[in-house]
Amino acid sequence: MKLLKKIKLPLGFKANGVPCGIKKSGRLDLALFYSDRPAKAACKFTTNKLEAAPIKINKRYLKHNSKYHAIIVNSGNANCFTGKPGLMAAENTTREAAGVLNLKKESVLVASTGIIGKALPFLKIKLAVPALVKGLSRDNINKAKQAIITTDTFVKEAAIEFNVGGRMVTICGVAKGAGMIAPDMATMLCFIFTDAVISRLALNKALDISVSNSFNCITVDGCMSTNDSVMVLANGASGNRLIEDSGKNFALFLRALNTVCLELAKMVVRDGEGATKFIQIKLDGAPSAKDAKKMSLAIANSNLFKTAMYGQNPNFGRIVSALGACGIGIKEEELKIKASPLNKKEIVVDVRVGKGTGKAVVYTSDLTPEYVLINAEYN
Amino acid sequence: MKLLKKIKLPLGFKANGVPCGIKKSGRLDLALFYSDRPAKAACKFTTNKLEAAPIKINKRYLKHNSKYHAIIVNSGNANCFTGKPGLMAAENTTREAAGVLNLKKESVLVASTGIIGKALPFLKIKLAVPALVKGLSRDNINKAKQAIITTDTFVKEAAIEFNVGGRMVTICGVAKGAGMIAPDMATMLCFIFTDAVISRLALNKALDISVSNSFNCITVDGCMSTNDSVMVLANGASGNRLIEDSGKNFALFLRALNTVCLELAKMVVRDGEGATKFIQIKLDGAPSAKDAKKMSLAIANSNLFKTAMYGQNPNFGRIVSALGACGIGIKEEELKIKASPLNKKEIVVDVRVGKGTGKAVVYTSDLTPEYVLINAEYN
Repeated sequence: MKLLKKIKLPLGFKANGVPCGIKKSGRLDLALFYSDRPAKAACKFTTNKLEAAPIKINKRYLKHNSKYHAIIVNSGNANCFTGKPGLMAAENTTREAAGVLNLKKESVLVASTGIIGKALPFLKIKLAVPALVKGLSRDNINKAKQAIITTDTFVKEAAIEFNVGGRMVTICGVAKGAGMIAPDMATMLCFIFTDAVISRLALNKALDISVSNSFNCITVDGCMSTNDSVMVLANGASGNRLIEDSGKNFALFLRALNTVCLELAKMVVRDGEGATKFIQIKLDGAPSAKDAKKMSLAIANSNLFKTAMYGQNPNFGRIVSALGACGIGIKEEELKIKASPLNKKEIVVDVRVGKGTGKAVVYTSDLTPEYVLINAEYN
Repeated sequence: MKLLKKIKLPLGFKANGVPCGIKKSGRLDLALFYSDRPAKAACKFTTNKLEAAPIKINKRYLKHNSKYHAIIVNSGNANCFTGKPGLMAAENTTREAAGVLNLKKESVLVASTGIIGKALPFLKIKLAVPALVKGLSRDNINKAKQAIITTDTFVKEAAIEFNVGGRMVTICGVAKGAGMIAPDMATMLCFIFTDAVISRLALNKALDISVSNSFNCITVDGCMSTNDSVMVLANGASGNRLIEDSGKNFALFLRALNTVCLELAKMVVRDGEGATKFIQIKLDGAPSAKDAKKMSLAIANSNLFKTAMYGQNPNFGRIVSALGACGIGIKEEELKIKASPLNKKEIVVDVRVGKGTGKAVVYTSDLTPEYVLINAEYN
């Protein structure tokens, strides 16, 4: 099972992206993803307690509805910490798109990314929705993927095809994220579409596993966003035999979704704000898998480790210090650290912390002066 | 009770600092603090599980001994992650100083700061000890305070005098620390000397409270060191009536120690690697004092908050995001944030998170390109 060289939307999906004026630059900042038939949805949202307005709206819709047709996304404004007006703006955004698409508002999910604490200019969105809907097409996924990014320097996309009992099934995902990236999906938006026929239980289970193996294993700056969302729509257009939550076809679907999610997650790290290195930390010998993840993320989030990687400085003392600070018992004499050459763009750090069976792999980037400059100025 | 304009050692103390060749620059890197009479000691060490060799040696001595005469400190090498040879080097350092001073080794405490994972060149220390001891004097505290620093751009020192029943008591402290600063005393060394007559219980209690109000309220980069130590020697030379662990005189001593520790802690933040801002975060309205500290440190450790402060960028969304990521329940409508002008060197950020009674004050610095460059190169 291999990623496609060029992404394509699964059967029954269309997309579009337009500039609506939220970004001062005039770039694309409003995206719509649409399924011509009702789709099941599975979503994972940030665990940040101060979640953004669109997340609150989605949670409400997901409670009372089971069929979805669209996701509308703006970039440039997070619609977070915006109070009641923000909630209304998010709800009105779904109502507006639903109106033009002739749907009920609860079948339209919504996402936002950008600055926190500024009012979302709903009027700009409202005025742009007709053109946004009018331009929906299979090819315009290329505009949609541009319209969801902020400080990203490239778009993140991945697609895969596989055969389920004679029917070709496609999974296609697009993502944004470059800073405020931490486990539990800090500022990360990811939209995944599939034409698979799959039970809701199976879709949720596959997404849970895939996210914990991908988006929850990456960190750029340890900062958890208020807006993170991974959403999957499955519209069943491929006509394959129903995938249940176990068995061979589930395993196949899971592997495909995992592959797409991991590819997108790695792209997010590669595009980490100001990053010059892509660093994989492989840790084993921990008391448990949970400890292994905690320890490997402690390394990945250490500013001192990250600056050392930027400086190509084999200062492994910083790994030692980060590990010791985790609060998990560890013996100096059992600790082994080695790394591939630091002057390369891709670095693998192998850490053995003891004799336990817990392992983890996490991905991160280096911390650079550029990161500081980007974030000193962003607003 | 006011800090002295110029520090002075309490009665019965001497100090010195020499270059022994650990620092490539040839700067002072070996310090000795000495009391001419036996002193009580109270110490707080890092909670990092991979503690450095000198900390292990001190803990051993503190278990089996109650009278101390000296502290020997090297900078430029942390003697951490150095295995059995590192332990022997730390022990031999105390033995060497004790030999020349005609003491038993257990009455000499030891500290190291610098790079982790490189063998401590004990021979260099051994060769320098005779000159180090020979130069002991009250004035040479000025050399000792230079010999304990690494990337620090200025020395940290503070002293105070106060009257206990007609006797003048002095508390004098010197500290180092510029990076790897986090609560629980990340890379921070602090040595405090007093001529007070005080019970061991009272000394320990006063140090516990003072550290939790000062060194445990500061963070530069959230990285916890393997070597942090705050040590107090009290030699009783002032001849005041014994200070017990409660009452008016204890309150007086505590206030004085608190003042010295807080002053030193603030200096450490002011000298944060690459820092251009000194930021005080005052948080109240949390469910408990513990929650308040967790929340204020979450803000203080957020790279996005720290880069915004560097950029003088009133992007309070980053405070919102850091608070929400703490996992402590918080209501958007109860959150109030205000800050003094960001173009000043000293910034006060006031955060009200709800209706609770928990408060905290923490101190931090901004995150700058300079921090990255310092730490990319340090080894």
